[in-house]
Amino acid sequence: MKKINVAMVGGGFMGKTHSHAWKNAVHFFDLDVQPVMKVICDNNKKTAQQYADNWGWAEIETDWQTLTTRKDIDIIDICVPTYLHHEIAVAAARAGKHIFCEKPIALSAAQAQAMYEAAEASGIVHYLNHNYRRCPAVRLARQLIEEGKIGRIFHWRGAYLQDWIVNPDFPLVWQLQRQYAGAGPHFDLNSHSVDLARYLVGDISRVTAMTSNFITERSVAEAGGPTAFSAKTSRKSTGKVTVEDAAFMVVQFENGALGSFEASRFAPGRKNYNYFEIYGSKGSCAFNFERMNELQVFSRDDPANTQGFRTILATESVHPYMAAWWPPGHIIGYEHEFHHAVVDFLRAIATGGSIEPNFYDGMKAMQVLEGALESAETGKRVTLA
Amino acid sequence: MKKINVAMVGGGFMGKTHSHAWKNAVHFFDLDVQPVMKVICDNNKKTAQQYADNWGWAEIETDWQTLTTRKDIDIIDICVPTYLHHEIAVAAARAGKHIFCEKPIALSAAQAQAMYEAAEASGIVHYLNHNYRRCPAVRLARQLIEEGKIGRIFHWRGAYLQDWIVNPDFPLVWQLQRQYAGAGPHFDLNSHSVDLARYLVGDISRVTAMTSNFITERSVAEAGGPTAFSAKTSRKSTGKVTVEDAAFMVVQFENGALGSFEASRFAPGRKNYNYFEIYGSKGSCAFNFERMNELQVFSRDDPANTQGFRTILATESVHPYMAAWWPPGHIIGYEHEFHHAVVDFLRAIATGGSIEPNFYDGMKAMQVLEGALESAETGKRVTLA
Amino acid sequence: MKKINVAMVGGGFMGKTHSHAWKNAVHFFDLDVQPVMKVICDNNKKTAQQYADNWGWAEIETDWQTLTTRKDIDIIDICVPTYLHHEIAVAAARAGKHIFCEKPIALSAAQAQAMYEAAEASGIVHYLNHNYRRCPAVRLARQLIEEGKIGRIFHWRGAYLQDWIVNPDFPLVWQLQRQYAGAGPHFDLNSHSVDLARYLVGDISRVTAMTSNFITERSVAEAGGPTAFSAKTSRKSTGKVTVEDAAFMVVQFENGALGSFEASRFAPGRKNYNYFEIYGSKGSCAFNFERMNELQVFSRDDPANTQGFRTILATESVHPYMAAWWPPGHIIGYEHEFHHAVVDFLRAIATGGSIEPNFYDGMKAMQVLEGALESAETGKRVTLA
Amino acid sequence: MKKINVAMVGGGFMGKTHSHAWKNAVHFFDLDVQPVMKVICDNNKKTAQQYADNWGWAEIETDWQTLTTRKDIDIIDICVPTYLHHEIAVAAARAGKHIFCEKPIALSAAQAQAMYEAAEASGIVHYLNHNYRRCPAVRLARQLIEEGKIGRIFHWRGAYLQDWIVNPDFPLVWQLQRQYAGAGPHFDLNSHSVDLARYLVGDISRVTAMTSNFITERSVAEAGGPTAFSAKTSRKSTGKVTVEDAAFMVVQFENGALGSFEASRFAPGRKNYNYFEIYGSKGSCAFNFERMNELQVFSRDDPANTQGFRTILATESVHPYMAAWWPPGHIIGYEHEFHHAVVDFLRAIATGGSIEPNFYDGMKAMQVLEGALESAETGKRVTLA
Repeated sequence: MKKINVAMVGGGFMGKTHSHAWKNAVHFFDLDVQPVMKVICDNNKKTAQQYADNWGWAEIETDWQTLTTRKDIDIIDICVPTYLHHEIAVAAARAGKHIFCEKPIALSAAQAQAMYEAAEASGIVHYLNHNYRRCPAVRLARQLIEEGKIGRIFHWRGAYLQDWIVNPDFPLVWQLQRQYAGAGPHFDLNSHSVDLARYLVGDISRVTAMTSNFITERSVAEAGGPTAFSAKTSRKSTGKVTVEDAAFMVVQFENGALGSFEASRFAPGRKNYNYFEIYGSKGSCAFNFERMNELQVFSRDDPANTQGFRTILATESVHPYMAAWWPPGHIIGYEHEFHHAVVDFLRAIATGGSIEPNFYDGMKAMQVLEGALESAETGKRVTLA
Repeated sequence: MKKINVAMVGGGFMGKTHSHAWKNAVHFFDLDVQPVMKVICDNNKKTAQQYADNWGWAEIETDWQTLTTRKDIDIIDICVPTYLHHEIAVAAARAGKHIFCEKPIALSAAQAQAMYEAAEASGIVHYLNHNYRRCPAVRLARQLIEEGKIGRIFHWRGAYLQDWIVNPDFPLVWQLQRQYAGAGPHFDLNSHSVDLARYLVGDISRVTAMTSNFITERSVAEAGGPTAFSAKTSRKSTGKVTVEDAAFMVVQFENGALGSFEASRFAPGRKNYNYFEIYGSKGSCAFNFERMNELQVFSRDDPANTQGFRTILATESVHPYMAAWWPPGHIIGYEHEFHHAVVDFLRAIATGGSIEPNFYDGMKAMQVLEGALESAETGKRVTLA
Repeated sequence: MKKINVAMVGGGFMGKTHSHAWKNAVHFFDLDVQPVMKVICDNNKKTAQQYADNWGWAEIETDWQTLTTRKDIDIIDICVPTYLHHEIAVAAARAGKHIFCEKPIALSAAQAQAMYEAAEASGIVHYLNHNYRRCPAVRLARQLIEEGKIGRIFHWRGAYLQDWIVNPDFPLVWQLQRQYAGAGPHFDLNSHSVDLARYLVGDISRVTAMTSNFITERSVAEAGGPTAFSAKTSRKSTGKVTVEDAAFMVVQFENGALGSFEASRFAPGRKNYNYFEIYGSKGSCAFNFERMNELQVFSRDDPANTQGFRTILATESVHPYMAAWWPPGHIIGYEHEFHHAVVDFLRAIATGGSIEPNFYDGMKAMQVLEGALESAETGKRVTLA
Repeated sequence: MKKINVAMVGGGFMGKTHSHAWKNAVHFFDLDVQPVMKVICDNNKKTAQQYADNWGWAEIETDWQTLTTRKDIDIIDICVPTYLHHEIAVAAARAGKHIFCEKPIALSAAQAQAMYEAAEASGIVHYLNHNYRRCPAVRLARQLIEEGKIGRIFHWRGAYLQDWIVNPDFPLVWQLQRQYAGAGPHFDLNSHSVDLARYLVGDISRVTAMTSNFITERSVAEAGGPTAFSAKTSRKSTGKVTVEDAAFMVVQFENGALGSFEASRFAPGRKNYNYFEIYGSKGSCAFNFERMNELQVFSRDDPANTQGFRTILATESVHPYMAAWWPPGHIIGYEHEFHHAVVDFLRAIATGGSIEPNFYDGMKAMQVLEGALESAETGKRVTLA
């Protein structure tokens, strides 16, 4: 089996899911290429070494730029905070490396566009890791839509709710600082929802939005806490939260559907509540990541006395990706989406094809998100180009 | 027991729930006054007679204006299509009749304000029948908020979804015509949601909104079909739908909470899905009318390892109104809300007090709804006075 | 409309639901006969008078035997504790009165058989009020089974769980004394489940069972507490619980299905959890009374990738009984089952027909329940005749 | 880090989950010993080689007996059909190998006892893989019980339902033949439930049971189909199903609780529905493996108006095992239980301790299961020694 060398940049939480997927995807899926965990790169050498020791990355680097010059690297996996995506991705693309990039794509639509153009210019395979597209239940929703089971779509209702910063004592991590994260849940969470909406409903043409801040000042993280590639911490004992705490949008899709997006980190009890409902002329479906193995589907074609939302446990071998895993009813978890992403990414490389979502999708979603921020600021509805 | 005479105007679907409540509330609740079903008024004499025969209304009238001149009428119950509310309510108020009025309050905030001023000027008890406030689970939510169990409120997420006009063959009933209904689900459904949001969260200060139409032309209802007080049907075989099919809003509350409202009649599988979630600094709650006996409550005060949304079956004798009904776990239905409304309305009259929601609440909600329509039209966020 | 005179014996909780149904069924359903609330009978005159005053029963009696001799009584509604059913029913039947009888039918299968034989001998309409058969969602389950949607039935899994006597301070009410109740939850709750199982699956041929007691001594109810027709209270400060607290059975049905029944009053959190699941060769269904408007249905005929349990909200006009009530999604409650029972009972009288469940069904179910008690006592499986 | 050599016997579905866990547990958990995937043994050499190639087992063997003589093997992982467990386990124990054994333990309680005695005699660490004990939500249930949150236990209600053989065309696999499997779902599924019940409630003292067969003859599997260590297929085109299709039990626990167990492979719509409810004097809990990240908990200590079952999403770092995985709300799946088992097993070896469930637990559960089969056959309740 042909081998293909991977270098991963960044060693935080996401590096764990990525390492796991690079290591194990090949055990469950038939692949024509085998990923080799060649280099882990983190500007904190100790972190890099820990990743190498624990996950079996063969070598460590502390300067990501060396990766672009090494001939033996085929794939660069970008796992660092958002503000670094643009620079690394553009350099990697120019160096002809395939790119597996964490979301959100970048700090702005302009950065995203530059990434997209660089990637296309060099002909590499570029992937943006909106992992939820590869949840089997979500992919099933897509199949039903493609088969016409939902019909003409009237509504998208998306919400992505978490509660990890409700406590005022939670510190000022990089995700709460605009220079590193670009925005708050609007980029972190709504970016996922917009990606799913584009995947399942289509492009968005108009947006109106409002945002809120509930806690504006937080203690700075302890010294030494931030991992490499993350934000520098202030020396003051508290710092200003420079991103929104919640962002709600109403949109119109190009196909006429009316939609909503609601992202918040101030929803106690919602842990990773990535939720959507889609309503169409033939039926409806609903998804909640916290029960990610299930899809709710309603069909107006069912007999009049037995219509109702079905809870489909998407763990049958006929469901997307599931033949590779366990028997029906033996559910899978969050990390499996990353395995699926690695599989599809490697297959795209092997066949000379492409994969979605990619930097184009990231750019399009970022245009919507920027439009929403503009609307929130100006008080005016924004029409997207 | 003191008797108090009721005259109900209108004999449609709502007349059924009202008649049932006037007749039976007294059997379940201790009341100091006993309502007497004195007059049913409908401009269609046959309809009026049917109501009298079936429900025991003692007399019939066909002209509502006579009611305002009759000395023996204490309460006028307004159960007619929206466009007639203003005229009847103002006249009834001036005649010193207590008013039990169906929602939405009127065609406009100006009409609502006139109703409110007339009612206050004459010192009558006025009630606007947003029945969901008197669902025991909803009232429980209010109690928890008052007790501080939810804390500072961050979010309201309301949706009111139905699917009764998804079929393009559904005819052009009065609810789909602006001159009779004022607006579509925005007035019909969002009015309920805004009333609940004001009850549970507080007043709204800013709103941005978008609306959509999915089916713009429908067949006119069959000749003879419309009941009295309903719209005249056109002679053409089809007519134009002059109200929106869906209306989505994002709002900011005066207390800083960020909220959303989504009303649609194009949500297959949702029958009377009056749904809300409230998130606060101490906890959260969620309600779905289709499971109206339940309230979901999350508390951040629970031990860390046993936090989770509780499904409270609000059928215990400690829950609002429930001591009057059945043992725990023996659930109640839609109509019971109307019984509770009648009980509280009669008690307000007996004690010389007032009841909420009333015409003031209707006026305030209508200002929000009108602001949203303005926003949808102009593309600009609207700040409420 | 022909009038038919009702006399109700007993003025406890059940008298409330019955009075409500006798009073209101006629307002919602087309009936050829109109029930007249003629006599309320309770050996406590004050209770009887309260019922007459509150519910409009025209006259009171304190001796049920006078009812059997009055020519102007057509129906006797038996609403008293179990130990009185047999005597009243046999007398009523012999007097040619139609009988509407609360469940469980009696203290023993022998009593039930005598009731059945007396009723049949006199040609009256006899009804045993296992109200859950007339829940629209349950009746829908029956329709699906009759239409072959479930196929050959493999399993019945029934549970009826409550928690009202978990508190050791709860007093020794008549339901906890064998001489008045016959048995504990086995008669009170399993009788409902066995009735539903017979309705939906068929007759039972073999049974094995075990019972348990968790609290064996309780305080006697306060003096004066028990209403008429209820048990005499002991003078001692505590008394012995003489019925089981929980009864679990495994059964085989005549059609080969393997089933289970689990009744308990010691299940904290379950208020009136009358639950069943049915599994067959074509599909499955599940019901929980605490969400009585819903039926869960699974069909093996659905496409392989969209199979799942549907939550059918049985509130459409196509669902049994629902056309008489509210629009879709506007749910009904516990008491509506009693209205449906009154309607079907009156129609049986009007047409000279019969109604199920009746004393035959009560007798058959009681044979199963007695067999289970025998099994619990002897440790041997019991084959029913 | 000290290395410890593992040899796995058997290469079917379970070999996949075991291989995955041996390979990855070390990446997520801090361990003092590192498992080395030394030998895969299957009597079908091709299967063994495939496992070696795919999962990185270093060597292959085709005769399990050689493993017991190899000095370089520390752990034998028994992943073969049930009928082979006893022989391999006894030999492995005598050879001083630690044993990680799939469930059900063996064909009989006598075999299980022999395994237990051999294991104890040699002082090895023995583990029986009832994986559900290591589901975080299940372990949370145990913690709550230990902390007294459930109080005195009244009831266990267990069900384990699947539907994979409802189709009559499903072939006669080894699981349907008594000589290979010992029994049907009673051993396969009830063994899991009994293990959980013993873990959470305690030992069982009395049992009564019934079983059923719905399809008695099935086609034999295609030639060449069965993997090594599985049953020989008959040459006839059909063969007799020699195990039950469903087994229902009622039991009494030593602590007085009344319980039920219902196992079936004929429950359409239930895929891996390993379900239980526990009711006690202080509260209740409920678990459904198909939503394995959730535990339902009811507490009588909650305020009267806010009691209700909580849905605890057991994905917080305070929940058992979860600190090793993902952030809250990012759920885990079936396979993670195997990782947890490997971790605890290795820790037991490292510390010279033991682990539960082990062969003692397997023996105790098998005594209950055998008692139930005796009861089903004789029609008599069986008291366990």
